[in-house]
Amino acid sequence: MSDERRVQEVLARYVRATDRRDGKSQGTLFTDDATVQVFTKTGHDAYEPLSEPIIGSAGVEYAVDNFMAPHPEGGSSHHTTSDHIIEVDGDRAHMNAQFVVFEVRATARPAGGWPEGAFGAQGTVRPIESGYYDTDLRRIDGEWKIIRHRVLMDMPIAIPGA
Amino acid sequence: MSDERRVQEVLARYVRATDRRDGKSQGTLFTDDATVQVFTKTGHDAYEPLSEPIIGSAGVEYAVDNFMAPHPEGGSSHHTTSDHIIEVDGDRAHMNAQFVVFEVRATARPAGGWPEGAFGAQGTVRPIESGYYDTDLRRIDGEWKIIRHRVLMDMPIAIPGA
Amino acid sequence: MSDERRVQEVLARYVRATDRRDGKSQGTLFTDDATVQVFTKTGHDAYEPLSEPIIGSAGVEYAVDNFMAPHPEGGSSHHTTSDHIIEVDGDRAHMNAQFVVFEVRATARPAGGWPEGAFGAQGTVRPIESGYYDTDLRRIDGEWKIIRHRVLMDMPIAIPGA
Repeated sequence: MSDERRVQEVLARYVRATDRRDGKSQGTLFTDDATVQVFTKTGHDAYEPLSEPIIGSAGVEYAVDNFMAPHPEGGSSHHTTSDHIIEVDGDRAHMNAQFVVFEVRATARPAGGWPEGAFGAQGTVRPIESGYYDTDLRRIDGEWKIIRHRVLMDMPIAIPGA
Repeated sequence: MSDERRVQEVLARYVRATDRRDGKSQGTLFTDDATVQVFTKTGHDAYEPLSEPIIGSAGVEYAVDNFMAPHPEGGSSHHTTSDHIIEVDGDRAHMNAQFVVFEVRATARPAGGWPEGAFGAQGTVRPIESGYYDTDLRRIDGEWKIIRHRVLMDMPIAIPGA
Repeated sequence: MSDERRVQEVLARYVRATDRRDGKSQGTLFTDDATVQVFTKTGHDAYEPLSEPIIGSAGVEYAVDNFMAPHPEGGSSHHTTSDHIIEVDGDRAHMNAQFVVFEVRATARPAGGWPEGAFGAQGTVRPIESGYYDTDLRRIDGEWKIIRHRVLMDMPIAIPGA
């Protein structure tokens, strides 16, 4: 498998762990001194940090397990990435990717069955967030790990109480 | 071309055949004894089969041609896949991918032309389904074919009369 | 990096340049005699050209800078591509990809802060266009350049005054 594909698959595992709210799997993708920071767009090519960086594998695990809202009953999500630009230089790599997040809300089957005329998938799939992931990786003992991950959000984020 | 890319392109052809309702092209991507089964999500990591498996190339062709709703006038769709995780082991491969299905409904140009203020693409693009494709392939005479394809839908499916 | 990935990354740079309305970056992806033409779907497998072809690197640069609507305050977009089918034959390549365009509209933070109950990303992400990119490339001095780019839109386009 090419290094570029290996690097891209780190992001493929990242989005699955995020969508499953699986902090442990998410944490293993990062080094112990990795930094993760979320930025929101304030203008053309301008971003500001949303909060302090999260530090390392353990910090990422804790953040996913404690700060991400759990899916409601029937809920799931897909963080999808596309149009990756990846540069590998020896044991270092840089990746930039677009992302779009879809929120899925399944409708529960009514006790008496689906109403007349109901057809196909029952529920909603809705894009709710978008932006770019900008990510630096390092190969350690043959495995690519994230050392710096920046989430560049297109829209501002409202945090209750903040 | 790498084996991983070859495997991924099987899925790229699969989604095109699905969107075109082209049973013949779809069937050729599968072996004669392949199984295809659709599952719907019933809980965290839990799925139940929606129906019996479809068997083989001929079964897939028949299902696409006879059971998929044709697009209405001006209608089309895009089954899009992302964040593939692919493992190739000799002549065997496994692929997991996210999917989001978009339903496209074009607005017909009015006889008198577009109304004042109309600008850009006329119609709607709407995500209607999502989930994961989980797919096993085998290399036969140098070509990758699907031997087992599981469609893991995030939402329940209403089938009239079922 | 494989030739297929190099070719795919040309498209990754294309969508970024489009979303940034960066005519200069966009132009450099094309040869001087490249043709770019937009088609709209008129029926099953039938398309008609929306207008005359744009010619070459300079034509593309001019078109992006002068004919693409600028993003409004808080606006951005993502042209996302997926399910690429790429054939490389020596110094020639052909790529077919699906595209979905998302329009992003950020909500400006109110002077008094977000209203009670506001949570998560503030604004909308909405799919507005879709179709296929069908692209021919040639390798020139080691770099892949687009020589012919066809944008096959699923929906008709309303152009004011046209």
